[in-house]
Amino acid sequence: MAVKSDIEIAQEAKMLHIRDVAGSIGIQEDDLEFYGKYKAKLTEEYLKKAESNKKGKLILVTAINPTPAGEGKTTTSVGLGDALNRLGYKTVIALREPSLGPCFGIKGGAAGGGYAQVVPMEDLNLHFTGDFHAITSANNLLAALLDNHIQQGNELQIDTRQIIWKRAEDMNDRALRNIVVGLGAKADGVPREDHFVITVASEIMAILCLASDMDDLKKRLSKIIVAYNYKGEPVTAGDLQAVGAMAALLKDAIKPNLVQTLEHTPVIVHGGPFANIAHGCNSVRATKTALGIADYTVTEAGFGADLGAEKFLDIKCRIAGLKPDAVVLVATIRALKYNGGVPKTELSNENLEALKKGIVNLEKHIENIQQYGVPVVVTLNAFITDTEAEKDFVKKFCEERGCKFALSEVWEKGGAGGEDLAKAVIDTIENKPSNYAPIYPDNLSLKEKIETVATKIYGADGVIFTGPASKQLSKIEEMGFGNLPVCMAKTQYSLSDDPTLLGRPKDYKITVREAYVSAGAGFVVALTGTIMTMPGLPKHPAAYDIDVDASGKITGLF
Amino acid sequence: MAVKSDIEIAQEAKMLHIRDVAGSIGIQEDDLEFYGKYKAKLTEEYLKKAESNKKGKLILVTAINPTPAGEGKTTTSVGLGDALNRLGYKTVIALREPSLGPCFGIKGGAAGGGYAQVVPMEDLNLHFTGDFHAITSANNLLAALLDNHIQQGNELQIDTRQIIWKRAEDMNDRALRNIVVGLGAKADGVPREDHFVITVASEIMAILCLASDMDDLKKRLSKIIVAYNYKGEPVTAGDLQAVGAMAALLKDAIKPNLVQTLEHTPVIVHGGPFANIAHGCNSVRATKTALGIADYTVTEAGFGADLGAEKFLDIKCRIAGLKPDAVVLVATIRALKYNGGVPKTELSNENLEALKKGIVNLEKHIENIQQYGVPVVVTLNAFITDTEAEKDFVKKFCEERGCKFALSEVWEKGGAGGEDLAKAVIDTIENKPSNYAPIYPDNLSLKEKIETVATKIYGADGVIFTGPASKQLSKIEEMGFGNLPVCMAKTQYSLSDDPTLLGRPKDYKITVREAYVSAGAGFVVALTGTIMTMPGLPKHPAAYDIDVDASGKITGLF
Repeated sequence: MAVKSDIEIAQEAKMLHIRDVAGSIGIQEDDLEFYGKYKAKLTEEYLKKAESNKKGKLILVTAINPTPAGEGKTTTSVGLGDALNRLGYKTVIALREPSLGPCFGIKGGAAGGGYAQVVPMEDLNLHFTGDFHAITSANNLLAALLDNHIQQGNELQIDTRQIIWKRAEDMNDRALRNIVVGLGAKADGVPREDHFVITVASEIMAILCLASDMDDLKKRLSKIIVAYNYKGEPVTAGDLQAVGAMAALLKDAIKPNLVQTLEHTPVIVHGGPFANIAHGCNSVRATKTALGIADYTVTEAGFGADLGAEKFLDIKCRIAGLKPDAVVLVATIRALKYNGGVPKTELSNENLEALKKGIVNLEKHIENIQQYGVPVVVTLNAFITDTEAEKDFVKKFCEERGCKFALSEVWEKGGAGGEDLAKAVIDTIENKPSNYAPIYPDNLSLKEKIETVATKIYGADGVIFTGPASKQLSKIEEMGFGNLPVCMAKTQYSLSDDPTLLGRPKDYKITVREAYVSAGAGFVVALTGTIMTMPGLPKHPAAYDIDVDASGKITGLF
Repeated sequence: MAVKSDIEIAQEAKMLHIRDVAGSIGIQEDDLEFYGKYKAKLTEEYLKKAESNKKGKLILVTAINPTPAGEGKTTTSVGLGDALNRLGYKTVIALREPSLGPCFGIKGGAAGGGYAQVVPMEDLNLHFTGDFHAITSANNLLAALLDNHIQQGNELQIDTRQIIWKRAEDMNDRALRNIVVGLGAKADGVPREDHFVITVASEIMAILCLASDMDDLKKRLSKIIVAYNYKGEPVTAGDLQAVGAMAALLKDAIKPNLVQTLEHTPVIVHGGPFANIAHGCNSVRATKTALGIADYTVTEAGFGADLGAEKFLDIKCRIAGLKPDAVVLVATIRALKYNGGVPKTELSNENLEALKKGIVNLEKHIENIQQYGVPVVVTLNAFITDTEAEKDFVKKFCEERGCKFALSEVWEKGGAGGEDLAKAVIDTIENKPSNYAPIYPDNLSLKEKIETVATKIYGADGVIFTGPASKQLSKIEEMGFGNLPVCMAKTQYSLSDDPTLLGRPKDYKITVREAYVSAGAGFVVALTGTIMTMPGLPKHPAAYDIDVDASGKITGLF
């Protein structure tokens, strides 16, 4: 029998009306704003109520460094949520919204996989409830107001060579990475170099995800630094009188969305900032709402634990006052063997030597989470090619390091395949207290914060700051942003800043080449190497295979 | 007492749940996809059923050439619909969706005015149900696939100097009118000149509004000419394998939206193409659905009757097989006096001489509609400064020309202020048969079609075709598009192609400077003068005054 594709499984699902999913956790119809039958936003009134409720337990799902072999972090989050509900623990899953661009490129959608998926999968991967379009609009309104200010006399004396704000589009479009705008005649604007980023890389995305409510959102929007004037002083979105209109565009986007898993577990899906130049987590509002509704909240963070979990713990939890109770670290035998030097084509063969060599990547991530004082559970996302010997090896390895281990078969079996993992998580939460604390205090210097992350989390010997980076960090501190957390922009493929160094790199230094402040989001971005903020399409884009029939049924989305 | 603003009146309205508005015309809850409590899309199943129903009567609302004095076409459409319902005639209003860009610029929103408005006004003017964002995404996916094709080897031999397809954004942003894309390194694309248009100017907007269903939409999308190759042959969206993915992005956008007036009359709002480079009407699906539901459908077309009504009658009705039963021509005393040479500041004074001089603009539009064989009703959108003598003059003038006349006070009184107009419309439909026929047959040459519109509708002596325009029209006929209707891109401010010639210009020729085929939409665009497809923001953009409070209430939108 042919294996069914994710979209086939999703389309065969018998979804409940979202009213009934909401009802299962005590949300009334009046608390919902429907978007069709299977999606809803939660009302402002309900959000305020839920956020102020007693707090449930918070479980973060993260992973080893991503490899071409695939790990399945979202799949595990979904399956774990389903499993907890099956076992009678009232659970809500809180995830990020997928970006539209990658759906047409190489990556495909992002709603879990197999029998551990969020539905309706097509809607989630296409426009969903329009949040990202609202963010794109707000981003580009700010850009239009900025260029219009210059065109109309430039009262703020904006230096067109020092414009920071970029336009955005939720599309993979390399031709927009580097452009010149404002060409033509006098009425057509002031020529200058400009750039588009993909919407998830917009600071507004990060702001939306860190804002506690509309007032906080507006405060953050007003602080966005869009440019510097001829004196070198920052010019903000507030200076451009852009805040009210941007906030009006975001009035629905700041309300989290409710959908369901294939097994009808409620899923709050909201926001999705990049995990390199931003913090890679779903919105604070979504997480707090889930905590107010359910006894257990399962959430995730982007890329591997060195990026996503570090930022979840050092940025999101710090800013939002959240305290995680357990971290689930996802790995696969295949990915661990890849870390041990096995090429992608040979991952199906048993290879204990390679596993032993590659498992150091997992080891470092376990140690890292333990540094934050949060208990760790390791799970292997099962593949048919995994052997008993390999699985036993990993289990023993984890238990020796003081963390529970469980196999996860949620891709194949849905929630039923995640019950062992759910039990391990519950056992951990009930028996191991979380003594969560961020890895560095607010009052360290920015360089010291970066050094702390590099040495304690990445395992580097130290940090090399280039001349420009040192100068920029000094200026950021002079401007009064020295107390902010740092947001490391680093390759996701390695613990180091070199994507080719797998496993657990040693005896190396991290190089910070550039730094800037995302004053609205509330963090200082430190760039190591080149970070792509506008992806391109491959030779055969996924878009070629997507279609829709006369009834509106979509095919080819994966 | 201070006069209330449109948004204040709209926000004080007690809206019905859209389920109940739908119920009032026999639409069941199962036929709806809710977007919150006050907006819904109609399901594909329902649309198919409604479109095949017995047909009601079709009333087009159009106007004299727009002036800075304002005419109030949408306000009249809304008030007329409300009035018909008050009088017991089962009526649905079918309108265009407003564009987001102008909301932040100078024009403000577009949902009627005073007590003749469509609500929820803020949603309608901001993201509404996301249709325009879907169109923007589809437009820009096509652009990304085009540039990616060139980047990946350019198998289709696209001549980068002959790329027609432009990127789109629903924003007033002059800096994007003329840009250079693809700068940077080899991986960042092929440098070339490019342009952004506002989303309403995208051919996809026109296509969405002319497509009869998903299959027809896909056929039209595949015909879009995006560029020419080195041999001068057209390259289409179909050649780029973009159609399925674009259609998937548009799967919800092709479903019309249901909202209500302040008096709970059902309004189907759908699509909104430019009325210069496109045909300026709401979607064929929306109009056909309204005709299938109600006994009377009130719809409108953009700009004055020379652009909007001409295209409604020669493009939309021709392509969709629609037959209008009556046309309502909206004028104001102030606008007629402006046409008679009175400056904007002096329009409040009685001036019968100027009125007599300016009413020739109305006269020509009456004659024009009569040329199509459709009965005309003229209405004056009342202002407090209008005098009895002025109103009597206009009434007599219209009646002498064989059309009913009625005063409309819908801005001040809602539907109650439109009852006279509603009675005049009903009387006209019941007593005067419509012998609608387009102004030219399909089989005329493109030049003859343009000449027919210029001489019969605009009142010109003839047409001057520039060398490039003649060459382009020949090539379009050689490519096999000679049978398409023509879409005139002309200033809306004058019957002529000179915006300063008010009234009824005589002894002049129209100059056609350029022509191209919108092969997907199915018309040939003839450009007279420069047409702006990307607006700019003014010195004090409306965005400065827009705000939203903690509860989500928006202020400053107008």
